[in-house]
Amino acid sequence: MYYIGLDIGGMSTKGALFNKSGEILQRSVFETIPTQDSSEFVKQLKDLCLALLGAQGVAVDRLSGVGMAIPGSIDSKKGIVTYANNINFVNVPMVKEFKKYINVPVKIGNDANIAVLGEMYYGSAKEYKDIVFVTLGTGIGTGIITDGKLVLGKAGAGGEGGHSIIKINGTPCTCGRRGCWEAYGSATALIRQTNEAIKKNPNSILAEIAKKEGEVSGKTAFDAERAGDSVGKKVVKKYIRYVCEGLVNLVNIFRPEIVLIGGGISNEGDALMRRMQTFVNRYSYGGKNKTKVLVKKAELKNDAGIFGCLALFLGK
Amino acid sequence: MYYIGLDIGGMSTKGALFNKSGEILQRSVFETIPTQDSSEFVKQLKDLCLALLGAQGVAVDRLSGVGMAIPGSIDSKKGIVTYANNINFVNVPMVKEFKKYINVPVKIGNDANIAVLGEMYYGSAKEYKDIVFVTLGTGIGTGIITDGKLVLGKAGAGGEGGHSIIKINGTPCTCGRRGCWEAYGSATALIRQTNEAIKKNPNSILAEIAKKEGEVSGKTAFDAERAGDSVGKKVVKKYIRYVCEGLVNLVNIFRPEIVLIGGGISNEGDALMRRMQTFVNRYSYGGKNKTKVLVKKAELKNDAGIFGCLALFLGK
Repeated sequence: MYYIGLDIGGMSTKGALFNKSGEILQRSVFETIPTQDSSEFVKQLKDLCLALLGAQGVAVDRLSGVGMAIPGSIDSKKGIVTYANNINFVNVPMVKEFKKYINVPVKIGNDANIAVLGEMYYGSAKEYKDIVFVTLGTGIGTGIITDGKLVLGKAGAGGEGGHSIIKINGTPCTCGRRGCWEAYGSATALIRQTNEAIKKNPNSILAEIAKKEGEVSGKTAFDAERAGDSVGKKVVKKYIRYVCEGLVNLVNIFRPEIVLIGGGISNEGDALMRRMQTFVNRYSYGGKNKTKVLVKKAELKNDAGIFGCLALFLGK
Repeated sequence: MYYIGLDIGGMSTKGALFNKSGEILQRSVFETIPTQDSSEFVKQLKDLCLALLGAQGVAVDRLSGVGMAIPGSIDSKKGIVTYANNINFVNVPMVKEFKKYINVPVKIGNDANIAVLGEMYYGSAKEYKDIVFVTLGTGIGTGIITDGKLVLGKAGAGGEGGHSIIKINGTPCTCGRRGCWEAYGSATALIRQTNEAIKKNPNSILAEIAKKEGEVSGKTAFDAERAGDSVGKKVVKKYIRYVCEGLVNLVNIFRPEIVLIGGGISNEGDALMRRMQTFVNRYSYGGKNKTKVLVKKAELKNDAGIFGCLALFLGK
């Protein structure tokens, strides 16, 4: 019994072949071409699967399932990608299309939802059943598990926690609203905030670091803070506040046992986690008797998606 | 087979005796004394139950269960009221205490959670399994059902959607944060906003109506709007915006099939529901292909709690 997990992204698509013990036997990756036709894309996915099997000499009929993590609104029950703008899919019957090539059980889901499954079964949240998983990357993704089950919503369109506003009339968001959490707390937002601070403080250590590196990343302001720069420190402080206000919102709504932080920004590690933990402890609802919530870095990093695909089949 | 539902509030506690068909045979109510000792309060609840049974000549041994809707953090599994400041309960083993008097199955839960169960089994949301229930009253209460199950969170402390901020650094909230949805979208907030507008516009129709009625309520601004007052219109418009921004936040997180509106403000009825529906349609996440969410007034009004208590036993 073998399984394949496919983590489809706007930039690249990763695949992994697992044995039934959940060990990765083979990995492969291809560059995603966002503009191409969906049927071409499905063919590419099929080719990736065949390549993974071929590399390990595993016959197709020994494959027990293919799972796919897809960025967008996914109707898992019907096997349809309702809307995934990054890969140009609108109402594509993914499961049906893929099975034309490889007729095995195929399960699909939203990427953040699949990732939190991965963390629950194989990663940082193994002992927990109430989990909020937040990725701080290009956007803010959220995958939420309550009492052991994913929050999917109508037609799988739920879980868009990044698109809840924290500042009415605030910064415009790609979704059409103003003031979304994503517009303040994503890595993209931090880069914008860092660039603004550099413009205002061209002689700061922050500006110097950015110049030396040739570009501003989600790490630049944290580096400046570590170098003792007051400008960098201010940027980071404000950014963490933005992230944490959104975290506390979700904590009050779900009161999970654990909040997992993933995405590029989570590489700041324990120091950042401690600051978030302090904020959540202080501002979450409940007075002196409040139910504590643990804040922790997601362990599986870029592998959360492919492990989540495996969990679609082996998770109990 | 008979059941009793007790809806405990900071002002009054309502009780109802049901038969197994879910018909109310008898109602009763007593004024809640928030400052009293918890054991005294449990005795009062027992007396209320005995009175309900006595009035219908039903023997205690024919009672099959007592359900309680309680305002606060409730650990339903353990039967403990963790924290309910309105009735002065901290870590009270309610189920155990009550059973000392009447030894039948007893189930307890948070009032907003129980209310949404009532609406799902007996009210406005009978065909739905993904429901967000929002009460616009003294505060903002939320009760959320995803895939047919209540979102309870760790130790039942979840579901505090009113305490998610919509305006960073905004109006102080009773919970210790600034800018909570409750501080902008509750009836209490509307009254504050109305009073501010009256102060600024002492010659408005709004001010006149308030003077005539001797007090400002959650209805005053709506009445002024209906009377053609531009000041009242502005207050209402802004208030609806506040309410709807929070609604869309929850819609994006849960993507329910239906949003139910309860609490005093919901008495504004269909006209208000239509305005909310328009906002939700327009600003919820998902581009042109978005999954529609219905906005509807909660039907059971003040009876949602007692019917929800019945659902704790008869809900399937």
